[in-house]
Amino acid sequence: MENLDPMFKPKSIAIVGASRDPHSIGFSVVKNLIDSKYQGKIFPVNPKADEILDLKCYHSVLEIPEDVDLGIITVPASVTPSVIEECGKKGIKGVAVIASGFSEVGREDLEEKIVGIAKSYGMRILGPNIVGIMSNPMKMNASFGPYLPYPGKITMISQSGALLIALDSRTWVDRVGMSYLVSIGNMSDLDFADVIDYFKNDEETKCISLYVEGIKNGRKFIDVSKKILEKPIVALKSGVSTRGSLAAASHTGSLAGSGKVYSAAFKQAGVVQAYTLDDLFDRSLALSLQPPMRGENLLIITNGGGVGVLATDAAEKYGIPLKDPPEDLKQKLKEIMPDFGSAKNPVDITGMASAEWYGKALKIALQHPWVDGVTVLYCETSVSDPRELSMEIFEATNCNRTNKPVTVSYIGGEVTERAIEWLQKKGVPVYRAPDRAISAMASLREYGRYIEKGFDEFNRFEDVDNEKVRGNF
Amino acid sequence: MENLDPMFKPKSIAIVGASRDPHSIGFSVVKNLIDSKYQGKIFPVNPKADEILDLKCYHSVLEIPEDVDLGIITVPASVTPSVIEECGKKGIKGVAVIASGFSEVGREDLEEKIVGIAKSYGMRILGPNIVGIMSNPMKMNASFGPYLPYPGKITMISQSGALLIALDSRTWVDRVGMSYLVSIGNMSDLDFADVIDYFKNDEETKCISLYVEGIKNGRKFIDVSKKILEKPIVALKSGVSTRGSLAAASHTGSLAGSGKVYSAAFKQAGVVQAYTLDDLFDRSLALSLQPPMRGENLLIITNGGGVGVLATDAAEKYGIPLKDPPEDLKQKLKEIMPDFGSAKNPVDITGMASAEWYGKALKIALQHPWVDGVTVLYCETSVSDPRELSMEIFEATNCNRTNKPVTVSYIGGEVTERAIEWLQKKGVPVYRAPDRAISAMASLREYGRYIEKGFDEFNRFEDVDNEKVRGNF
Repeated sequence: MENLDPMFKPKSIAIVGASRDPHSIGFSVVKNLIDSKYQGKIFPVNPKADEILDLKCYHSVLEIPEDVDLGIITVPASVTPSVIEECGKKGIKGVAVIASGFSEVGREDLEEKIVGIAKSYGMRILGPNIVGIMSNPMKMNASFGPYLPYPGKITMISQSGALLIALDSRTWVDRVGMSYLVSIGNMSDLDFADVIDYFKNDEETKCISLYVEGIKNGRKFIDVSKKILEKPIVALKSGVSTRGSLAAASHTGSLAGSGKVYSAAFKQAGVVQAYTLDDLFDRSLALSLQPPMRGENLLIITNGGGVGVLATDAAEKYGIPLKDPPEDLKQKLKEIMPDFGSAKNPVDITGMASAEWYGKALKIALQHPWVDGVTVLYCETSVSDPRELSMEIFEATNCNRTNKPVTVSYIGGEVTERAIEWLQKKGVPVYRAPDRAISAMASLREYGRYIEKGFDEFNRFEDVDNEKVRGNF
Repeated sequence: MENLDPMFKPKSIAIVGASRDPHSIGFSVVKNLIDSKYQGKIFPVNPKADEILDLKCYHSVLEIPEDVDLGIITVPASVTPSVIEECGKKGIKGVAVIASGFSEVGREDLEEKIVGIAKSYGMRILGPNIVGIMSNPMKMNASFGPYLPYPGKITMISQSGALLIALDSRTWVDRVGMSYLVSIGNMSDLDFADVIDYFKNDEETKCISLYVEGIKNGRKFIDVSKKILEKPIVALKSGVSTRGSLAAASHTGSLAGSGKVYSAAFKQAGVVQAYTLDDLFDRSLALSLQPPMRGENLLIITNGGGVGVLATDAAEKYGIPLKDPPEDLKQKLKEIMPDFGSAKNPVDITGMASAEWYGKALKIALQHPWVDGVTVLYCETSVSDPRELSMEIFEATNCNRTNKPVTVSYIGGEVTERAIEWLQKKGVPVYRAPDRAISAMASLREYGRYIEKGFDEFNRFEDVDNEKVRGNF
């Protein structure tokens, strides 16, 4: 398919409807582009202004003397068709339409009109009814959201604009790093499948994360997603309840469908599902930082029996039930813990465990061929400093040449919070409850299974070809 | 039953096994009692020391010249029986046995022995295998946990010591306020039912919160709990999976049983269940701060469609499905929002909503007889300051004379975090995701249903009595 670089990596942007009123969206977008240090060219367009925020303002896009990649349309819905027409004449390749007042309020006609105009010029539309596009690698806040998200490798695509803005702020509190935040709105033209298909090739994206209220073309979504094995896709589907699906329909005008239908479709599409907003963040973080889990053997290392039991429950709930490790692994683990510890799974290195014991146990586990992934659980104690523990875990995962995933749960106070922050920055996802660390690991396993299934299908395909070849002789 | 004041509100404490070694538990407990500013008398006991931390040290409890309410036993398991014998002779009423090495490692004999000795002196035992007792109202950290928890009205009883210590620290991060933290360990004598029964009369406890791995006497637990209507009880049961139940058994030596058996027992006992560690904190907080929800009509007020849909899904999942509000309420709500808002449930006052709109909508909702509880959802936007919103919500709930519960979800950045902190301190529980605010409300409804059922049963009992009376005439 065609390249969406002009939309998501534009070299120049026109803001059609740019404004000098600080309370307007047309002002916010211009200001946000400047504040985010966008390196491309910015062309404000407003028939009544000559200058906005020290930038020369054009009375029409047609007056802009240079090429324009992306048009951000901040005029009201009713004016949008004529403005898009002008963008087409100018040769703009992509427009992001911020205004609401289209299919979500019954104005399908207006939406069809702008799509028709765009098509006639070979132009793509993002929206309408969106917040805009935020990109850390591009230093581009082409939206009316307040600032770029905490930097990282997740590209999140959201059907809800308000949620996108709120989550944007929250990424800084939770330190969940994003590459792009894309508001997809009514999906009049570009839909989830198109945007996913584009970001599969983006080097700054390690995980594609979706907030979905409804998908319009299910077949296309499945066909595009299932071919993407190189990057995990994770989705939170809202509107899964009877009444929730009605609410979703009135919100973005899309058919919500039952939760079961979507779960089945996600499975077919090789998309990992998330179950709550926290879970979407948790799983996206793990999938953006850690390799997939390539086998069923999860080992848990803990200093507390209670959290071990909670993690064991969660492992069963999320489809990665624990098994006992082989004897030789048990023996090796036994050597680094006191007699009253347990080398069963969860491995309980006891409340006496120091950061060093954790480091040793984690290295032993990662090096053993039986182990496919490790979840480390830690309860703050007086005999261990969580900051030292973070250093030990980082060191053990950093020399993890076998490329096995690690997720972590820390429960504790302010010192623990600092230890979490440090370790997360080093690329190890840390959660504040054992079941959340396990859910994150389960998403890595789910992605691992999709990869294995994908390879299988690919292999079968080759087999068939071979049969054919042999049949010819 | 007898009064456990000497155990939980002691006027004097002997630490048997007090030590001058800063790494020992016997040292920690003495230091923690001093640091927490405990107002009662502290008597360290150690045959080999004359002074510990500037306190006179006794060579035996029998040497202490004054009455002792509580003995904290910090000697190893093997020495415990003889020490408990001395405590009995001294007339101590309660002992908290910290040492492990009893039934959890197969030494049921040793555990039976100390129970036998205690009984012969009319003494009660907490533990063994515990961390101790923390009390904010008593300013008493009679444990080897680092400090008292964030102050509040939850009394939490935990079967896991390591978890208790870690959660103790976490209360300060999450600002979830505790009255008591009680480590219950192996429950050789005092069990959940005994401790619950005691705290039902404690004025500083508004909610009793349990971390349960296994209950030994199910009948007693149900009988005691179901009679307590004046205070909510909430429980997280770990070890609900096949393997988790085995792990729990080896951890505290109690029979874990299946998750379903426990769910049924909790229902019979009128105990609200929590489903994860986060959920235990979330639900305990709501139950300690807000009144029960006395009817099925939940109204949601939101400024974002997306979070509204997520909350609608959660309401169905947690058994409080949304219904449309009556016309007159819709009309009143319509007056405070723009035309494109929605007065259906969830009530969407739109992304344009100011703090003031929220305040008005919340007051209208709380005053309307149809409404039994309100969940407020907020996505941070540029047109509303979350700190002002917190003030509006506080004012509306503060003049809520109808005594209806309110739970809140805020999604946003650092300013939102400060707004959450402020509102939580004022007694309104705030969560960082819509489904969590709904789960908290569902726990208030569950408690409300138990109260209604309890009253029904009580009323039926009266009816029977009346029949009897009439029959006599």
